[in-house]
Amino acid sequence: MANLIAISRRKGVRTRAALRVNPDVDPRTHRYTSTGKKESKFGVDLERGRRFFDTFGRDEAVHLCGIHLHIGSPVNDIAPYVGAITKGLALIDDLRADGFDIDTIDIGGGFGAHYRDAEAPPAVQYAEAITPLLTGKGLKVIMEPGRSIAANAGILLTTALYLKQSGDRDFLIVDAGMNDLLRPALYEAYHFAWPAKPKPGFVPTDRATASTLPGLKLIDIVGPVCESGDFLAKDRMAPPIERGDLVAVFSAGAYGMSMASHYNSRPNPPEVLVDGSEFRVIRRRETYDDLMAAERL
Amino acid sequence: MANLIAISRRKGVRTRAALRVNPDVDPRTHRYTSTGKKESKFGVDLERGRRFFDTFGRDEAVHLCGIHLHIGSPVNDIAPYVGAITKGLALIDDLRADGFDIDTIDIGGGFGAHYRDAEAPPAVQYAEAITPLLTGKGLKVIMEPGRSIAANAGILLTTALYLKQSGDRDFLIVDAGMNDLLRPALYEAYHFAWPAKPKPGFVPTDRATASTLPGLKLIDIVGPVCESGDFLAKDRMAPPIERGDLVAVFSAGAYGMSMASHYNSRPNPPEVLVDGSEFRVIRRRETYDDLMAAERL
Repeated sequence: MANLIAISRRKGVRTRAALRVNPDVDPRTHRYTSTGKKESKFGVDLERGRRFFDTFGRDEAVHLCGIHLHIGSPVNDIAPYVGAITKGLALIDDLRADGFDIDTIDIGGGFGAHYRDAEAPPAVQYAEAITPLLTGKGLKVIMEPGRSIAANAGILLTTALYLKQSGDRDFLIVDAGMNDLLRPALYEAYHFAWPAKPKPGFVPTDRATASTLPGLKLIDIVGPVCESGDFLAKDRMAPPIERGDLVAVFSAGAYGMSMASHYNSRPNPPEVLVDGSEFRVIRRRETYDDLMAAERL
Repeated sequence: MANLIAISRRKGVRTRAALRVNPDVDPRTHRYTSTGKKESKFGVDLERGRRFFDTFGRDEAVHLCGIHLHIGSPVNDIAPYVGAITKGLALIDDLRADGFDIDTIDIGGGFGAHYRDAEAPPAVQYAEAITPLLTGKGLKVIMEPGRSIAANAGILLTTALYLKQSGDRDFLIVDAGMNDLLRPALYEAYHFAWPAKPKPGFVPTDRATASTLPGLKLIDIVGPVCESGDFLAKDRMAPPIERGDLVAVFSAGAYGMSMASHYNSRPNPPEVLVDGSEFRVIRRRETYDDLMAAERL
């Protein structure tokens, strides 16, 4: 805040700013993407938030006019939002009673996306619980629904390289790895995976029942990277897949390419935008030259 | 193997090759970097390895002349190496008895490095246990000691941005994050961290006793990336650190920059080679232009 005040003064502007507070609710998601519990690095606890306004809330250069919450992601429960917003609104009531001019609440994001099947509440269910809390409060509401929009807008397409058995396990080795999609390794995240062109009899009607089709086999779908964390899908009932088949790894639109690395000196794949039967390459396939660019001095 | 045979025939060459076998030993390291247990995707189990030679071991185009083992990394125990090599040698004896011409064993890597203090056995201890097994066997020995050489050859230098308190915790926010050094998030790996220029009275003699110096405070050292997995060091007793101070994160030479990503649209830092008082930038600092290069079509 001292920084923001200094910059605003130097530039001679009055900056509108929100304070991120930590409402200490448990979003019941992966500990790495839970951001609103009291041990989190994000924001300040409510009591400190209150004192923060006493210290900085009447500054001329920065108008502290909002409260920002973000409890984590993905959050398939609605109760944590109700809990966090209720606490945020109580803080706003308090601040207003003391004469602070609060006109905005940012309720954050983390609204669920379908990974396994249809586990994320529809937007209307979040809305039904949240809007009554916010209605009539004279607050501009900001929200950040990134994952719930983007996750299922992206598919990772990867080619089957080898099928192999070792011990009592069957492995499908594909040409995408943890460097392309880190979520399975980092969060033990589930991504539904299925051949892009399934053979007859292996076209699922939905993700949940796909594993009950007759004739499936238990496999691990793994990448070519040098560690055991390099898996895309573990313990999956999968239909016949042959060398050269394309496999679709679903729900890769959020935290997919944005977390990609060049680990094992692997250039990143291209990104292709698809609209019906039209498509366009929006990010070209990287080359080894790209990987070396910063080393040419 | 079918691939290698096809390529060798097409090129009219005789290729020397080793088979990676999975000795099913437990290296007692992180499950993601344990690669020689029977549920691992790497190699084939010993019995399949034996049969593999019956199928492919007399091919004209590919001379299967070696056995490759790699049990995981880092491995601070010596017994798993002894176990794995003993099993590998028994397989080689078997194969030789059946007339296969095996002249090489690759014992892999994973030899420990000092992260916390001096927890990795010195090279001589590994050697004392391993060399008697291999001596006189008529085998060329290959090893892959990457981490044990590289880990402590690299330090991540990062600048302290803010100190803050929330709940009952103290956070030091630095300008490096999980995109620069993924190991803490991915493996819950420990990296010793200390100010590059400690104030008087806070110069530790070694890593183990550093935390017992008087006047330290419990902090989390975290980055500016948008998730709780973005930490470099948790629950550490740290000396006074001020905004702008350089903090050294040690043992970053192995699986540091090689796993770096651009997550949160963060360009990667430069790499600087230091030799005594000489230094040279060997990889320049990336720019936002670098991040966009593949999107300019």
